[in-house]
Amino acid sequence: MAVTYELIAKQNKARAGIITTPHGNIETPVFMPVGTQSTVKAMTYDQVRACGTEISLANTYHLFLRPGADLIAKAGGLHKWTNFEKPFLTDSGGFQIFSQMRINKCKISDSGAEFIDTVTGQKHFMSPEDSILTQNKLGADIIMAFDHCPQGNATHEEAREAMLRTHAWAERCVQAHARAEDQALFLIVQGGIYEDLRKQSAEFISGLNVPGFAIGGVSVGESREDIDRIVEFTTPLLPENKPRYLMGIGTKEDIVKAIAAGIDMFDCVMPTRIARHGGFFDFNGERMQIKNQKYTEDFSPLVEGCPCYTCVNHSRAYVRHLWKVHEITAGTLLSIHNLTYLINLAKEIRGNIISGTFDPVKYLNT
Amino acid sequence: MAVTYELIAKQNKARAGIITTPHGNIETPVFMPVGTQSTVKAMTYDQVRACGTEISLANTYHLFLRPGADLIAKAGGLHKWTNFEKPFLTDSGGFQIFSQMRINKCKISDSGAEFIDTVTGQKHFMSPEDSILTQNKLGADIIMAFDHCPQGNATHEEAREAMLRTHAWAERCVQAHARAEDQALFLIVQGGIYEDLRKQSAEFISGLNVPGFAIGGVSVGESREDIDRIVEFTTPLLPENKPRYLMGIGTKEDIVKAIAAGIDMFDCVMPTRIARHGGFFDFNGERMQIKNQKYTEDFSPLVEGCPCYTCVNHSRAYVRHLWKVHEITAGTLLSIHNLTYLINLAKEIRGNIISGTFDPVKYLNT
Repeated sequence: MAVTYELIAKQNKARAGIITTPHGNIETPVFMPVGTQSTVKAMTYDQVRACGTEISLANTYHLFLRPGADLIAKAGGLHKWTNFEKPFLTDSGGFQIFSQMRINKCKISDSGAEFIDTVTGQKHFMSPEDSILTQNKLGADIIMAFDHCPQGNATHEEAREAMLRTHAWAERCVQAHARAEDQALFLIVQGGIYEDLRKQSAEFISGLNVPGFAIGGVSVGESREDIDRIVEFTTPLLPENKPRYLMGIGTKEDIVKAIAAGIDMFDCVMPTRIARHGGFFDFNGERMQIKNQKYTEDFSPLVEGCPCYTCVNHSRAYVRHLWKVHEITAGTLLSIHNLTYLINLAKEIRGNIISGTFDPVKYLNT
Repeated sequence: MAVTYELIAKQNKARAGIITTPHGNIETPVFMPVGTQSTVKAMTYDQVRACGTEISLANTYHLFLRPGADLIAKAGGLHKWTNFEKPFLTDSGGFQIFSQMRINKCKISDSGAEFIDTVTGQKHFMSPEDSILTQNKLGADIIMAFDHCPQGNATHEEAREAMLRTHAWAERCVQAHARAEDQALFLIVQGGIYEDLRKQSAEFISGLNVPGFAIGGVSVGESREDIDRIVEFTTPLLPENKPRYLMGIGTKEDIVKAIAAGIDMFDCVMPTRIARHGGFFDFNGERMQIKNQKYTEDFSPLVEGCPCYTCVNHSRAYVRHLWKVHEITAGTLLSIHNLTYLINLAKEIRGNIISGTFDPVKYLNT
């Protein structure tokens, strides 16, 4: 298999492990920065590496539309295209496509999904096979099944329909996958906020012999309580000897709870998105706003003791000034800090799990 | 004196030298990147350093308005504020203020200039003393006199009036300067396109005992021929034992001609500005446009053999893609390349001057 998982230590349900990939090992739990269009926004890959990144994401929906998977294949795949030679993970495009349901731009059938390019307005069609073919061309180490993600407020019947379609598509994705020797296909559990469906989905998906599993359809509009309940319920149902990926979460609270539930991998655009809007994490993971007046003459770093480039080199007052006068560099500096914070949070918790001292409550109460 | 100049080699009028400053030496001729608001746009100072930068500029007009010189002084001056510990040069604000003449927003008298903050619309006043006081607070290694720069189409009488005011102000700047021990005040020659005035100005300004001299009022709307003629005429009139700075020029052609005329220092926002609009220099200094269709599948670097981060790591096709999908990172990558190109051009010519092989015609004809 292209990807293997070794469980190093366990504390209650929380796991520390190592994922091996064709482009190097990943120590888990791990936060994965998102480089939607084959760059992490406002950063170079050297800066991404310097944040301690072990694996980076790219988005199939975006790259399928621009510049197209064929061009990236011609360049030698995502690693050569970006010159980021660490592991890559691509999503399937399913999430972005089904997000268009809310604006009535996506038509879905058992054969696949018709969607629009929100930039040009042009119509496109993507089947599970198309998604896998595209991801085979992109060449990430980990690729994701094309699933049907229902909305957060889906009824039991709607969630069941999406789950059954996800299962049928999962089998088609496995069939279509042409590079199992160097790309690991992860399958996705669906089922909305309904435990009976999540159980049914986890059992079905786990029965297919793939190198890893993901929980999808979380944080798509449902309540905080539903998110926590479903992640806690579903994660332990997944095989212990394979990596577990919770898609699209990235606050400190989300990460701590996910790790406590037994999740190994997570990603989110939030840390870099809020950075470009002036947001940064304090020592405690709380979201602060750099334009705040109180930072005007504050010559301390964003977070005292933070090892990131921004905190080692610059003050809150300086970054605030850059932000106030619309310098792009402010977004870069805040992105570096926010990524470093979440990556190091996961690394710190990993250490705690190995030493048997991981206390989720401590992280959530401080 | 805060700054000294040592002439290392001379070939015809072209000079190779070393400027010493409180924050390190600068090998001349040198191209100086501009960090208007105390950052080079779309770059971190680590990236600026990696381009081979020996000295960076910041703009008094912008910093006077935001965040204010007092805040930067409180931070410990520009070096500590930015954490760029190499030499800094600040302009006086004069150029930006008098640029407002074109939009009728600047009123000038012998006492100083009334101008507006183009962001807030608020009125401000700056005298030569105010400019020097502001620059004393900013704390750059090299600071510039507050001069009156006439427009490129100024009549002889207008140019003469601006020159005489510049001379009177130069004396007031010298008087007002309170940190001569660690900041070098450079005075500026004016006189428009008129050789008699340039001669008169060079003689007057050279007679004041300061560590360096600049030629101002060039490339402000006059013809290509006038620029070349005035630079060639004026430069040899400046003292041989002091650095000579030609303000605001930065194409390959400008630089080669300026060096041939005996100039040691130049700056320009152009390389980073065109970068943010997709422009980059080819091997020959010609301006190319990355969005050009022909680069779609071009996996070669911007310039073959270029040592910059962008060319070592990325292809034209990749940077083009980032540019086409509006990724800020494209502007960063092109800025890195363009700065590296001009900095290395000056360094290469320096080597040629030392070995006696500098051939301006070769640079201009290829």
